[in-house]
Amino acid sequence: MAGKEIRVGIVGALGYAGGELVRLLCVHPNVRLAYLSSEMEKSVRMSDVLPNLLGFLDAECVPYDPQAAIEASDVFFIAQHAGWAATNTRPFLEAGVKVIDFGADFRLKPAAVYEKWYGLPHESPDLLEKAVYGLPELYRAQIKEADLIANPGCYPTGAILALAPLLKERLVEPDTIIVDSKTGVSGAGRMSHKLDFHFPELNQSVKAYNVGIHRHTPEIEQELGLLAGRPTTISFTPHLIPITRGLLTTAYADLISKDWTSEELTTMFREFYRSEPFVSILNAETYPATKDTCGSNACYIGLKVDPRTGRVVVISALDNLVKGAAGQAVQNMNIVFSLDERAGLNGPGVFP
Amino acid sequence: MAGKEIRVGIVGALGYAGGELVRLLCVHPNVRLAYLSSEMEKSVRMSDVLPNLLGFLDAECVPYDPQAAIEASDVFFIAQHAGWAATNTRPFLEAGVKVIDFGADFRLKPAAVYEKWYGLPHESPDLLEKAVYGLPELYRAQIKEADLIANPGCYPTGAILALAPLLKERLVEPDTIIVDSKTGVSGAGRMSHKLDFHFPELNQSVKAYNVGIHRHTPEIEQELGLLAGRPTTISFTPHLIPITRGLLTTAYADLISKDWTSEELTTMFREFYRSEPFVSILNAETYPATKDTCGSNACYIGLKVDPRTGRVVVISALDNLVKGAAGQAVQNMNIVFSLDERAGLNGPGVFP
Amino acid sequence: MAGKEIRVGIVGALGYAGGELVRLLCVHPNVRLAYLSSEMEKSVRMSDVLPNLLGFLDAECVPYDPQAAIEASDVFFIAQHAGWAATNTRPFLEAGVKVIDFGADFRLKPAAVYEKWYGLPHESPDLLEKAVYGLPELYRAQIKEADLIANPGCYPTGAILALAPLLKERLVEPDTIIVDSKTGVSGAGRMSHKLDFHFPELNQSVKAYNVGIHRHTPEIEQELGLLAGRPTTISFTPHLIPITRGLLTTAYADLISKDWTSEELTTMFREFYRSEPFVSILNAETYPATKDTCGSNACYIGLKVDPRTGRVVVISALDNLVKGAAGQAVQNMNIVFSLDERAGLNGPGVFP
Amino acid sequence: MAGKEIRVGIVGALGYAGGELVRLLCVHPNVRLAYLSSEMEKSVRMSDVLPNLLGFLDAECVPYDPQAAIEASDVFFIAQHAGWAATNTRPFLEAGVKVIDFGADFRLKPAAVYEKWYGLPHESPDLLEKAVYGLPELYRAQIKEADLIANPGCYPTGAILALAPLLKERLVEPDTIIVDSKTGVSGAGRMSHKLDFHFPELNQSVKAYNVGIHRHTPEIEQELGLLAGRPTTISFTPHLIPITRGLLTTAYADLISKDWTSEELTTMFREFYRSEPFVSILNAETYPATKDTCGSNACYIGLKVDPRTGRVVVISALDNLVKGAAGQAVQNMNIVFSLDERAGLNGPGVFP
Repeated sequence: MAGKEIRVGIVGALGYAGGELVRLLCVHPNVRLAYLSSEMEKSVRMSDVLPNLLGFLDAECVPYDPQAAIEASDVFFIAQHAGWAATNTRPFLEAGVKVIDFGADFRLKPAAVYEKWYGLPHESPDLLEKAVYGLPELYRAQIKEADLIANPGCYPTGAILALAPLLKERLVEPDTIIVDSKTGVSGAGRMSHKLDFHFPELNQSVKAYNVGIHRHTPEIEQELGLLAGRPTTISFTPHLIPITRGLLTTAYADLISKDWTSEELTTMFREFYRSEPFVSILNAETYPATKDTCGSNACYIGLKVDPRTGRVVVISALDNLVKGAAGQAVQNMNIVFSLDERAGLNGPGVFP
Repeated sequence: MAGKEIRVGIVGALGYAGGELVRLLCVHPNVRLAYLSSEMEKSVRMSDVLPNLLGFLDAECVPYDPQAAIEASDVFFIAQHAGWAATNTRPFLEAGVKVIDFGADFRLKPAAVYEKWYGLPHESPDLLEKAVYGLPELYRAQIKEADLIANPGCYPTGAILALAPLLKERLVEPDTIIVDSKTGVSGAGRMSHKLDFHFPELNQSVKAYNVGIHRHTPEIEQELGLLAGRPTTISFTPHLIPITRGLLTTAYADLISKDWTSEELTTMFREFYRSEPFVSILNAETYPATKDTCGSNACYIGLKVDPRTGRVVVISALDNLVKGAAGQAVQNMNIVFSLDERAGLNGPGVFP
Repeated sequence: MAGKEIRVGIVGALGYAGGELVRLLCVHPNVRLAYLSSEMEKSVRMSDVLPNLLGFLDAECVPYDPQAAIEASDVFFIAQHAGWAATNTRPFLEAGVKVIDFGADFRLKPAAVYEKWYGLPHESPDLLEKAVYGLPELYRAQIKEADLIANPGCYPTGAILALAPLLKERLVEPDTIIVDSKTGVSGAGRMSHKLDFHFPELNQSVKAYNVGIHRHTPEIEQELGLLAGRPTTISFTPHLIPITRGLLTTAYADLISKDWTSEELTTMFREFYRSEPFVSILNAETYPATKDTCGSNACYIGLKVDPRTGRVVVISALDNLVKGAAGQAVQNMNIVFSLDERAGLNGPGVFP
Repeated sequence: MAGKEIRVGIVGALGYAGGELVRLLCVHPNVRLAYLSSEMEKSVRMSDVLPNLLGFLDAECVPYDPQAAIEASDVFFIAQHAGWAATNTRPFLEAGVKVIDFGADFRLKPAAVYEKWYGLPHESPDLLEKAVYGLPELYRAQIKEADLIANPGCYPTGAILALAPLLKERLVEPDTIIVDSKTGVSGAGRMSHKLDFHFPELNQSVKAYNVGIHRHTPEIEQELGLLAGRPTTISFTPHLIPITRGLLTTAYADLISKDWTSEELTTMFREFYRSEPFVSILNAETYPATKDTCGSNACYIGLKVDPRTGRVVVISALDNLVKGAAGQAVQNMNIVFSLDERAGLNGPGVFP
């Protein structure tokens, strides 16, 4: 380990997103896993719950204690249910500990939007103005200065990266946007092992859920609206498919000018993301598979201009637990602490 | 077996769609499998190639011979590559044998559309006017009188059944239609075992393919246009997911009147399909899974009116090899021969 | 429906095995589903819980009531947890209703074996002598006369069918038998949706469980011992693989005479099972896949004599919910009521 | 990168095992990927063929040229078909380049064994005495000095690690050993995309293949025999299951002394492997899942002493492409070049 050492604390270390964070950080060259915790009542060996860690990480996960967490950490990652971060973040910030929250508590502004879609009162609306939306491709400068980072949801990451160049450059009609997403089951979390996610019910099947009412909808709309310069309403349909990891987003929008070709738009996307370490644009009219990103922090994007319909179709692929959660959180941490943005994230995905 | 016996001939009996037809027909109460053939050079036992038949069907598949096929059959099913049926159908019709073609050769009118999308000259354009599009929910009366039936493609079946009530009743703007489909790998056929369909490449992954250029696009547009009463252009994106059977179609369209509720539209769909033996409409804002239809001839449909966007989202699920191919062909045969339309198709799907 | 009508009652109609029974019986030519029940508190539409039934079976599942069950049924199927049948069977028998139990309550003799392996007192040990082990390939004559049938477990069905010819003919050393089985997740049942069966935990994985202590062990040993003519102890290791249905059994045993060839033993197996409608023996040194039997009542068997080791390896494949549960129960019912043994079971499996 | 830099050459860089090697080495702190080649006729970008590399490795794969390969490399990895290494290795050794072969050409001694099981003449039998079997847990000292390393097969790695302590300590009867293995499809390689591995044929299925005749059999027997101190013949049955990566080995053997408990034998295994960085022994009577090792170089082992049968059952899990191929090759390279044995291999697997 060359250079500085960041002391990391985590709450929710035993879930899928938290466990993925541990996987990535336990080989990060600038990180010491200083405090691993969960809301379980007793301490457990990490590898007793996350079997991939056996032989690679010898650490305990302790019952969450706020004072211990604050003292042990330079940065604290929260991988908990909705509402937890709004209630528990303030003391960390007051103690000068950076906070990166995996949930939605600090993503939506104003608090009323959160309260409507999540059905919860917001316990710390005043912190919203301190929070930065942790999508480095759009907010790198603000992230660098932030104390509180709202790590984006997986669906919003896939949708916003697919559509940002089009909206920023005013190439499409915002209200024609349709986002049709397909994701793996790990996105539902580990503790959600109900009948819906029972293996025989899901295997060999695909279905839509929460059509038009998924909680990630306002998050996508907020960011697309900021890019477009005006309020934006979209159709968003998530689908569950029988894979463990992976998120494919198929986004449709009407082009304002019908003169674009797939090649020209591909070139424009490449220019837009030219400095981005984790976004790659495929050749025109070639499309990514989620498998290509399994375990890596990559987001791959391919697109098609359809002259018959005057629409553009943009398809993005990412790993919902990495670029859609833990990997993006590490990327944000790297930015906040002025590390190499690729530190701990420079490995390709597992293929096949 | 009560009542009449239909002598059935098949070419392409060893592929996935042909094999599914054999599975259904070998227990059909009014059918005798009189002639099973393929383009292989030698005869084989059916169960040596389709292992599920072992102990259930003791039959040979012989090299295709047109004269033998004609003599043996009251109805002849063609499950071959594009172009085969256009070249080989005429003698059957001349001999009074009904023909049901699984391919696209007789689906698209005029022949120029076929030639453009399939890149082949059409060898029998004059037969197109005799051909009936074999979607019973739209063309039952014509099918009853037909000698030549163009069995629909799997994607068109899912898309048209999802959208027909909306277009017929002029409830949506046709040119806002987007069809986003997800299908299993059996749709690619059995002889297509190339790298793209190699297990490790597909498993745990999802991807789009042929975006905006899939050959089923003009077929969907033709039928939606006929329903709408005017030419219709749509966006169609097929996706490959790691399941063997199953086709989920997510269709989006702008409502002309924004006053509809999901409940009202569900009621309207139920009315539209009230006499259909194989189409079931789910309760408002509930959605089908492909698994629910595995092995059966069912098509399940659920929908959502989204008041935020003024769009309706309709989702249909079916088994691409049954209602999307062989089952629908049997249904057509039942209609042509005035059998109970459910004969041989009255069994529920395999769940889970 | 030609000829007699059997009135069928079921308790546990909403589980995987019970639901599979309903799937098979709702198209059985001699059956009327007269009484469908479960231990839920309220009635539900069958198709609200088993979505494959929508459009195919319009029936209610009612809360179990013993008196109603007895009155409605000629035969009663019990698909419940261990212990239920021992407690509830007697009144059916007294009323002259045949009982077919899916569980182990009446499989093991004496009751002490049951009590040891299942950890439960046996509530009706006197009924054990009335019970016939419902494996038609071994006990057809007794089943024909039985009032109470103990339908075999899935693992025992696969293991016993693979090994019966060898033991009956005294060709192998019983105590060298090793049974290594691989099964799909539906065998765990529908209500068992715990973390172990959460999709992301199982998908892309294989593991052994209950090594040497699985409850089906004494059942296999009992039947193999009866075939061998002396007490037999085996090693049995079940494995969970990421499929929904299917059970592959790989059985190993030392041959007493090393002179057998694979071809000779295959011929012997074919002779042994020559009249069996659902057991097929593959050619020597070819092996079945579980997929070949999906949804059908088939059991396929292939074998290899290994001259290097002096062992025979026998591999059987079946669908754990059909020949391993509901299909075998229907086969038993057909025998009891002197129906065609293949009635309702004559359809091939779903392939691919 | 601290310290020395090893220049690595590879032939077969585009296959699954070769691609996995590239994935691991492109982030290895002491490696420079100096020469990537295949037997394709033209150069290609690595990431055009292995899509996970896009954005992570910008490199070409060139047509194999022996002189260029030798000059560019300190160590050369061969991931080719059987026979290639025997023909092509000599010039590398003469030039002082270390060779690590993924195939069987240098694993079996004498050459006659190879020729019998692989059906090929051995082109360089004299090199066999220079070759070291690259299983670090057994041959670390010899590997350290080796110029030519025969990297073990995936099945042998799983079987030998499961059984080595038992044979070395003379605790079991060698000729009672049965090895029943279950593996993912990536083991078949990428260029093997034939009907057998077509997604619909394999998905939702399990089957045995090459029963008693798999080419890894003599390799397992050779190493077990060396451990046992006498020739050993085993039964080996490989099974194909619908996962991409992962190899589970279930090994059975008769204990010589029946007094052992699972706990005692677990302790003995832990002692045997106490210094091994990649072998972990689970608690007594708990068993690994292949998922636990996906993408990592771990081998997890659990065991059960069954007092009823006097047998021990040992179960090992590993990733066939990592500890079963590329990861083990990297481990061997690390040993040869006196690097930290965990360099480039210290990351946990991807879970879930």
